[in-house]
Amino acid sequence: MITRRQALLGAGAVLLGGAVPLFAKQDQTKKTDEQELAKWMDYRKRLDGSGGWPWKPQKISPDMAAKLGYSGFYNSGQGCGYGVFKGLVGQMALKYGKPYDGFPLQMMAYGASGVGNWGTLCGSLNGAAAAFGLFYDRNASTELIDALFHWYETAKIPAFEPSIKKLDFTPQATVPHSTLCHVSVSKWCYETGIEMHSPERSERCARVTADVAKKAAELLNARIAGKPIQSKPSKNQATCMACHDKGKDSDIAKGKMDCGTCHDGHLDSKFSDHP
Amino acid sequence: MITRRQALLGAGAVLLGGAVPLFAKQDQTKKTDEQELAKWMDYRKRLDGSGGWPWKPQKISPDMAAKLGYSGFYNSGQGCGYGVFKGLVGQMALKYGKPYDGFPLQMMAYGASGVGNWGTLCGSLNGAAAAFGLFYDRNASTELIDALFHWYETAKIPAFEPSIKKLDFTPQATVPHSTLCHVSVSKWCYETGIEMHSPERSERCARVTADVAKKAAELLNARIAGKPIQSKPSKNQATCMACHDKGKDSDIAKGKMDCGTCHDGHLDSKFSDHP
Repeated sequence: MITRRQALLGAGAVLLGGAVPLFAKQDQTKKTDEQELAKWMDYRKRLDGSGGWPWKPQKISPDMAAKLGYSGFYNSGQGCGYGVFKGLVGQMALKYGKPYDGFPLQMMAYGASGVGNWGTLCGSLNGAAAAFGLFYDRNASTELIDALFHWYETAKIPAFEPSIKKLDFTPQATVPHSTLCHVSVSKWCYETGIEMHSPERSERCARVTADVAKKAAELLNARIAGKPIQSKPSKNQATCMACHDKGKDSDIAKGKMDCGTCHDGHLDSKFSDHP
Repeated sequence: MITRRQALLGAGAVLLGGAVPLFAKQDQTKKTDEQELAKWMDYRKRLDGSGGWPWKPQKISPDMAAKLGYSGFYNSGQGCGYGVFKGLVGQMALKYGKPYDGFPLQMMAYGASGVGNWGTLCGSLNGAAAAFGLFYDRNASTELIDALFHWYETAKIPAFEPSIKKLDFTPQATVPHSTLCHVSVSKWCYETGIEMHSPERSERCARVTADVAKKAAELLNARIAGKPIQSKPSKNQATCMACHDKGKDSDIAKGKMDCGTCHDGHLDSKFSDHP
């Protein structure tokens, strides 16, 4: 026989995402627990699926994604995260209207310059990943994110050539070797000798925004068409994960970034010897 | 007298965000340019302000943000980015209904584990920054992001103690020294000797999610009340930026992360000597 408390704990297990044994027993507060759990179950019921998630993705033009990305970057300085998201979801809004035109697109400006100019994740990658998240659950999004991020780490970018230019300057293409804005941008400045605070560097990032929007649109289209999504992890990841992954001697390394950008030792690293 | 072409180029200047001289002259394609510009102006007009952006923020309970963050983390494994966003925007949806309950909350699961398990920006910080972006433009969001991210770099976390626990385990609090998931998590594993792939590490991140949601709610409330938002950049940032900021000898360093986590040399760094 299942008591009310057990049933509620079962509900709580669902609430908090687990399958089996759950909460530490706190016998003296049984009733409070029950009330609290019922409240959280109600919250979850009311919020899950809010906004009609997941949204249905639509096939879009990769070239138009690139153009919307480039112009979106310069759109009142809203930057890379906004640009890519506009190239994907904004394009669907232009072509299909609802529900896409109901998304508050401009919120994505927060992602610019690695989120609030912090230089963490490249904003164009963040914008693309957020768009994937609008259409797919965590596992399916991750497959698309893997393909996009691994591509970015090794791509020679920018490759995009705008038909209408903000600046008459063709930025040198380099390989970022990292998904982080700080590394991607600072390496480009180091290799080209061009200052970080310059219109030329902005033009480089506007074109990278276009490249990422195009690649993300191609991946979305492939996914919609049921084609396989290919990923190629970095060699350095494989080297480190031989010791630091799940079930290994030292299960400690979180993530999939190319380790060699910050760590040297066994790795092929160019910038870790920066003084 | 302003010609139609000049007017359109002016419109284009607004479209692409600049104030003054804009596009490289391509005389042979004048007409195409005009048509193209008119098209992009139209796109911008149709997309700017879509979804009713910016949304009006509402005062919320920091403690409820923490609880929604913690339970949201375990919500079908949707993780940290979803948890914090739910603690902020989801809480507004529960309390105020529209427009907050129309946001597709679950898209934010993409931010988990530093976006698609990549270990880039801590997902709880990404979720909070995205919520700021829903309410404020890039400049105003950045002020809140600065305060939250600098706090996170130096905070001893997790501090949250759940009333209903998923796991009967109190994680050791450590200082992340970084906004990156990879560093924050791997350092915690290194310092505590607990495996990355373990329920204990998940519990640590669930509680960090609660801490970040609480702090972000406090910052939002302060901003709504018109109180000043305080930020304290890292000492290492100041050291590096003395040479690598705008107008300095080598204007190359993008971002505001604590440099010492990856670079040593002049800096106080513990982990840059990892082999």
